[in-house]
Amino acid sequence: MLTKKINLKEKYSQFSKHWSPRIIAEMNDYQFKLAKIKGEFVWHDHKHTDETFIVIEGEMTLKFRDGNIELSEGEMCVVPKGVEHKPCADNECKILVIEPRGVINTGDAGGDLTILEDIWI
Amino acid sequence: MLTKKINLKEKYSQFSKHWSPRIIAEMNDYQFKLAKIKGEFVWHDHKHTDETFIVIEGEMTLKFRDGNIELSEGEMCVVPKGVEHKPCADNECKILVIEPRGVINTGDAGGDLTILEDIWI
Repeated sequence: MLTKKINLKEKYSQFSKHWSPRIIAEMNDYQFKLAKIKGEFVWHDHKHTDETFIVIEGEMTLKFRDGNIELSEGEMCVVPKGVEHKPCADNECKILVIEPRGVINTGDAGGDLTILEDIWI
Repeated sequence: MLTKKINLKEKYSQFSKHWSPRIIAEMNDYQFKLAKIKGEFVWHDHKHTDETFIVIEGEMTLKFRDGNIELSEGEMCVVPKGVEHKPCADNECKILVIEPRGVINTGDAGGDLTILEDIWI
């Protein structure tokens, strides 16, 4: 067959590292990435693209310069391009991120949490 | 704030019609659409784009000419462009569809289930 079923829980079972997105699918030039997050990420933006966060399990906070958005399971948020944001989670949270291929997780901010390679699972 | 939280359950509570997708968000030129489906859709394809199905609640079948894919809550499938498919659900199933703005739900197949207007909720 030309396509296949993707089970999110099964994919999450394949990795445990925080802030290390794993690509599970592509739609045209967009990628679906699973991530487990805990703690505070860095402030950053993506100059050329919006970015979508969907919470699959747990709770997270998307911090913006003008306020916070709390997201729980079954909730999503599209961060517009150029808008600074900082994802945070007190406890481990499982998220699905959707964005174009080639987007760097830390934008131009750099730092230890920057992931440069595509890791498929 | 420049963006907002979207709660899928709350959005689903705003409509009941089957096979009538509602747009809940845009990411660049892509749209996130919620749909409640029950019964059989029509065979169709999308010549110029892939299309993503994520099951939020319930179970559905994506029929392809060379076999079926059964999807349950927490499962997804990217249908490649040009590949004929037919979504079906024995019981009501709630899905999230992601595809570029302007895609017609029935492709070129037409028929009573064709939705031409963008309905935002």
